[in-house]
Amino acid sequence: MFGVTILGNNSAIPAHGRHPTAQIISTTDDLLLFDCGEGTQIQILNYKIRRSRINHIFISHLHGDHYFGLIGLVSSFALLNRIQPLHIYGPAPLQGLMEQQFQLSETHLSFPLHFHPIEKDGILLDAPLYTVSCFSTKHRIECRGFIVRQKKRKRKIIRALAESHNIPTGMYALLQQGEDIRLDNGRMIPNETITIPAPTPRSYAFTADTLFDPEIVEHVKGVDLLYHEATYPHALIDKAAARYHSTTKEAAEIARLAGVNKLLIGHFSAKFDNPLVFEDEAKEVFPNTEAAMEGVTYLV
Amino acid sequence: MFGVTILGNNSAIPAHGRHPTAQIISTTDDLLLFDCGEGTQIQILNYKIRRSRINHIFISHLHGDHYFGLIGLVSSFALLNRIQPLHIYGPAPLQGLMEQQFQLSETHLSFPLHFHPIEKDGILLDAPLYTVSCFSTKHRIECRGFIVRQKKRKRKIIRALAESHNIPTGMYALLQQGEDIRLDNGRMIPNETITIPAPTPRSYAFTADTLFDPEIVEHVKGVDLLYHEATYPHALIDKAAARYHSTTKEAAEIARLAGVNKLLIGHFSAKFDNPLVFEDEAKEVFPNTEAAMEGVTYLV
Repeated sequence: MFGVTILGNNSAIPAHGRHPTAQIISTTDDLLLFDCGEGTQIQILNYKIRRSRINHIFISHLHGDHYFGLIGLVSSFALLNRIQPLHIYGPAPLQGLMEQQFQLSETHLSFPLHFHPIEKDGILLDAPLYTVSCFSTKHRIECRGFIVRQKKRKRKIIRALAESHNIPTGMYALLQQGEDIRLDNGRMIPNETITIPAPTPRSYAFTADTLFDPEIVEHVKGVDLLYHEATYPHALIDKAAARYHSTTKEAAEIARLAGVNKLLIGHFSAKFDNPLVFEDEAKEVFPNTEAAMEGVTYLV
Repeated sequence: MFGVTILGNNSAIPAHGRHPTAQIISTTDDLLLFDCGEGTQIQILNYKIRRSRINHIFISHLHGDHYFGLIGLVSSFALLNRIQPLHIYGPAPLQGLMEQQFQLSETHLSFPLHFHPIEKDGILLDAPLYTVSCFSTKHRIECRGFIVRQKKRKRKIIRALAESHNIPTGMYALLQQGEDIRLDNGRMIPNETITIPAPTPRSYAFTADTLFDPEIVEHVKGVDLLYHEATYPHALIDKAAARYHSTTKEAAEIARLAGVNKLLIGHFSAKFDNPLVFEDEAKEVFPNTEAAMEGVTYLV
């Protein structure tokens, strides 16, 4: 399973029952958390996310609606006597800020906390089955988007067939890599007759907060699912630009230019109570768009 | 109206739909906020508190469940273009911590923020109709409880009667202070025949987090409503002591010794899902006890 569960789809201030930005990315072996607005730990409870499986947290930038919930979540991990390591990737000053607060409360973490300051674009996490990389966006302060890419997996051997050909198990690794096999008797076994291709690796990109920026297109080209912020309806394009945010149609234009499969939009301005209005506008430019709704898991 | 609206009655981590500590104290002219755990601004929305009327915020101590929501609330005030001054009273390091976060997010407050570091016990705020003072509690880190005391108000003159006696308006101030009046013709007008006494000033005390500490009794003696933390059922008295918290019966014992009118208990451990169990235990020692429930306003 590879999916994104939206915990917050609102911008700036909580409103209309909507929360600030936070998303859980479910991969085969880990839960990742992208951004952590205030109340994220409560949303995690609300949507029955297994918080003990969150081992990597990525913070895009230091506007409060993207990180004010981090200190509370990490403190709760300590109160719950978490043991396994936690990795946080974010702007460098975040580390000192958290350490200060732990010191003031005399909190002693029950688990190793590894802080990885984000200093440049590129790969942040190289896990066995996926990578997470980051790219810069254009926002009022330094901000980065994140991309999760599944790695190419090995072909699956149909064991009964491989055994019927008496292929030595020492050659299985070659089979998994897609190679044909020449048996001792000289007979060739075409790989595709005894293996099944691995599922195509999929990818998810999260733009965090950003101006309309065509440079993002290169970064997110061809991803299966793109989450692009769409803080304002398109009529407010000047306001969006002044605040370093995007409109519905700008988000959709990035999706179109990047040739992604599907677009999710979110980070809705608190001034608007109905996300479907945003969805309708974006669909005019990129039909396969959905407004991100809290509590919903979108498959990548 | 003088009342306390509970926004969070849970300790440490959010659980069972309960939130960390925060209370709104409604006085005739202001809303005060006592503590501000994560999610307080969302609870303020949930319970339709007029946030623009909150002008004074008091933070008891720097454990996260009492202040992690402060930065979010104050940031939202700025995003909402608040104009009127905001006063925050709390441990001194809180000021630097907030300033750092405003700086990192390049937040420019739209209103004057006055930070008042709490350095000693005594009066923190002397408003026209009430005072707020603080006292030290015994907790793992420096912590203070708060008391709101209405000031003695003037007697109300029954104007028709005063006029029928031809009392010069220049003497009304004396009447309001309760003095009898001697008219020019020598006749005495007893004060109570032409004035009504002001309502008795009432008082509310909030103990924040504390060990069972008989020294608190002196501070809260005779208040109308006492909120005392009761983190644990009484069977866990050793655990409570080890963690610098109180049990149900310890809270009730403080209420009994202090001769308060009514006791509210809260700050319930996340391990227990039913606050009424706490209430039943406390009532054995102090019958006029209620378990503080979120969203409920208790009159002082």
